Amino acid sequence: MLFKVRMDVRLPADMPKATADELKRTERELAQALQHSGKWRHLWRIVGQYANISIFDVDSASELHDLLTSLPLFPYMTIEVEALCRHPSSIHADER
Amino acid sequence: MLFKVRMDVRLPADMPKATADELKRTERELAQALQHSGKWRHLWRIVGQYANISIFDVDSASELHDLLTSLPLFPYMTIEVEALCRHPSSIHADER
Amino acid sequence: MLFKVRMDVRLPADMPKATADELKRTERELAQALQHSGKWRHLWRIVGQYANISIFDVDSASELHDLLTSLPLFPYMTIEVEALCRHPSSIHADER
Amino acid sequence: MLFKVRMDVRLPADMPKATADELKRTERELAQALQHSGKWRHLWRIVGQYANISIFDVDSASELHDLLTSLPLFPYMTIEVEALCRHPSSIHADER
Amino acid sequence: MLFKVRMDVRLPADMPKATADELKRTERELAQALQHSGKWRHLWRIVGQYANISIFDVDSASELHDLLTSLPLFPYMTIEVEALCRHPSSIHADER
Amino acid sequence: MLFKVRMDVRLPADMPKATADELKRTERELAQALQHSGKWRHLWRIVGQYANISIFDVDSASELHDLLTSLPLFPYMTIEVEALCRHPSSIHADER
Amino acid sequence: MLFKVRMDVRLPADMPKATADELKRTERELAQALQHSGKWRHLWRIVGQYANISIFDVDSASELHDLLTSLPLFPYMTIEVEALCRHPSSIHADER
Amino acid sequence: MLFKVRMDVRLPADMPKATADELKRTERELAQALQHSGKWRHLWRIVGQYANISIFDVDSASELHDLLTSLPLFPYMTIEVEALCRHPSSIHADER
Amino acid sequence: MLFKVRMDVRLPADMPKATADELKRTERELAQALQHSGKWRHLWRIVGQYANISIFDVDSASELHDLLTSLPLFPYMTIEVEALCRHPSSIHADER
Amino acid sequence: MLFKVRMDVRLPADMPKATADELKRTERELAQALQHSGKWRHLWRIVGQYANISIFDVDSASELHDLLTSLPLFPYMTIEVEALCRHPSSIHADER
Repeated sequence: MLFKVRMDVRLPADMPKATADELKRTERELAQALQHSGKWRHLWRIVGQYANISIFDVDSASELHDLLTSLPLFPYMTIEVEALCRHPSSIHADER
Repeated sequence: MLFKVRMDVRLPADMPKATADELKRTERELAQALQHSGKWRHLWRIVGQYANISIFDVDSASELHDLLTSLPLFPYMTIEVEALCRHPSSIHADER
Repeated sequence: MLFKVRMDVRLPADMPKATADELKRTERELAQALQHSGKWRHLWRIVGQYANISIFDVDSASELHDLLTSLPLFPYMTIEVEALCRHPSSIHADER
Repeated sequence: MLFKVRMDVRLPADMPKATADELKRTERELAQALQHSGKWRHLWRIVGQYANISIFDVDSASELHDLLTSLPLFPYMTIEVEALCRHPSSIHADER
Repeated sequence: MLFKVRMDVRLPADMPKATADELKRTERELAQALQHSGKWRHLWRIVGQYANISIFDVDSASELHDLLTSLPLFPYMTIEVEALCRHPSSIHADER
Repeated sequence: MLFKVRMDVRLPADMPKATADELKRTERELAQALQHSGKWRHLWRIVGQYANISIFDVDSASELHDLLTSLPLFPYMTIEVEALCRHPSSIHADER
Repeated sequence: MLFKVRMDVRLPADMPKATADELKRTERELAQALQHSGKWRHLWRIVGQYANISIFDVDSASELHDLLTSLPLFPYMTIEVEALCRHPSSIHADER
Repeated sequence: MLFKVRMDVRLPADMPKATADELKRTERELAQALQHSGKWRHLWRIVGQYANISIFDVDSASELHDLLTSLPLFPYMTIEVEALCRHPSSIHADER
Repeated sequence: MLFKVRMDVRLPADMPKATADELKRTERELAQALQHSGKWRHLWRIVGQYANISIFDVDSASELHDLLTSLPLFPYMTIEVEALCRHPSSIHADER
Repeated sequence: MLFKVRMDVRLPADMPKATADELKRTERELAQALQHSGKWRHLWRIVGQYANISIFDVDSASELHDLLTSLPLFPYMTIEVEALCRHPSSIHADER
């Protein structure tokens, strides 16, 4: 099941650089692991923003919630979720 | 170059069904041709809405504009465009 | 899987009363059938509005889209969808 | 009488973890007691958000206000309230 | 139980004057009857707008919905409802 | 002359409790004195919010401004003001 | 007493030109009479918009409402009203 | 050339009172000098808000920017600017 | 003096094609004449929209208003105007 | 390829003046270098705001993202990006 997710990140201005770097490093590791697993199907940067557009492919809405809240940067994110489904004009038989 | 596009369609309440059907048929044909060409890389329906989320892969912003305005349903659409680029945590070397 | 859906209905001012009545009658029949099936789990009126708050329990986002777009009043509705999941403080073990 | 309530929680970035944990623990206890009493009829997590959608069944608007302001996390919440009533297409004779 | 209601009226530009006048006449009659009954406790015009701010005193949210939807101008109104309760600094012991 | 006023209060998270209590105490005293004088005609709590809906009856807009800015909580409030007048369907001859 | 008023005009696309011209002519006559009387103290066009910013000097909010609703273009206007008062840094002793 | 300007002031909660008083004093001095010069033609308080509505009469947009950014409170203001011009129904031959 | 202008065009769905074509033809002629004169300094299409971003270089706000309202498509446009001035980091000595 | 960018700058109230000055100095140097290179084609101040409107001429959306995120003030900016293309009524054959 596909969900489009937009994540806007805003770190506190007074967060020490080492803390921010460590957060970003662990975030990247988890994001890449989830991409390799196929759960985080697409991950794009929005031009000019500390934000991304992502497509998740999960078994349920609950699984998506668990993935998102497990992200190290979750406490600093504003997140919007939209459920997607196959478009009747898509050339693919599934939701791809 | 990737762009995320959201299209919301609103046909006039008094459009004859035959006109609407013909518009949708030619829209679908063009949408599928553009998918096969690789320009319209993804096309998903937003659940519960007469709207889609699309990813276009074009050579320039001008090309995107020409594609969008050539759609038969263009006069009945509200369109939002966001430029995307590769995310530093993506596992792909290109924008894919 | 649970989704919260808000539907706002706006019929054209010049729709003949017989047409509107027939639309509402078939809408009600389908809404009640879907409630009996367990798919449309809750249906409440928002006070002072021609609008409802509903909870759907479906197998996938696609199924929800198919249900919503099959509603006779769908062309006259503005629809908002939010995916829900179990709250950690819920006293129920499932999403109920 | 039914009210739909949406609660968004935002804890200060500099709140000590022990304070936050204690707040969440007492919040959960009260939330569960109110669910057992039937006052807090439904409690769902919104996917990807530190927020919930709830249905309260109270004797009056005043009772709802007293319940909401008694929540330990109330000072850190943004709350929206909508009054609900029975939908004419509901299969239930009461507001359920 | 008190509810604040804001009603904005927008009649179609092509409604015949006789129809509009008859709607307004029956609206006024019902509004005044409800004021005399104590259900529609306050009714004020918002300066410069075809809109009012009202305070209703009803036994339940359902009763408010029935009152509002019985208004002849209801199909032409945008309505916002807010539940009120006694303020702790009020000099009145009840919600008055 | 009547004005509807909505006041939303937001105290800084780090304000000492004694300071907040003293502010609220003097706010309540002034609010009650203004109610007894007839200037602050109605004061209701909005359900689920640290906010109120008030009706002021003043001689001029200037007087309203002076009253509002004299409130001890004024620096912590977001305030919206709407001018009201007698509604043609009101059963009262004055603005009451 | 001063009020700032913003009026946005939107005439129906199918209004006959003669009707529009007559409306504008009578609107202008009344606007000029009210300016000469001192009630409509300032009247400016917002650049690029069919809209104006006005300052009214009236005895009461009711008088303002009566003036605004007497304008021939009132049914085609969206109107916003803000109450003004003397600024403490003004070099004038009154509201001027 | 006339511009309507709205300025909303928000001082940090932890600014020492002496600093705030000094800022306001110098702000008032400059505001009054600019009023005497004719550049700051009108200055009104918005009722219930720490905000003003002003009309500036300047030779160019650049001059307006220089005036606004020279205000001592500028760093604490949210500012909206709208260009005005003579209204065709104005009784004045110039922009007055 | 520079102004940024955004124009969104929305032609009525039932406007005859010949009328629309004639409007667009005269609009283009005037737009090009104004570009040649230097008044309409830049004119760009916003990708995916029937809208443009323009930079005007005029002697006064009044002149801008006269230019905009003389456009044949003006009655079908939503227009936003922002006054610009030289940026202190610009490499040009004037507003260019 | 042209993009319109709006940047709003908001420095923390407690940033030392020397830090702010150094940030602005390096920002200006980079902004001027990018203007000289032709990448940052236009840079205007919005009147009354600590904000600019810019036109960038880049080879790709990725290049724009890299330029924007390399700005020293980037962490303190809110940025909006809109893709532009040649307008059919432009007198220039390219996007200029």
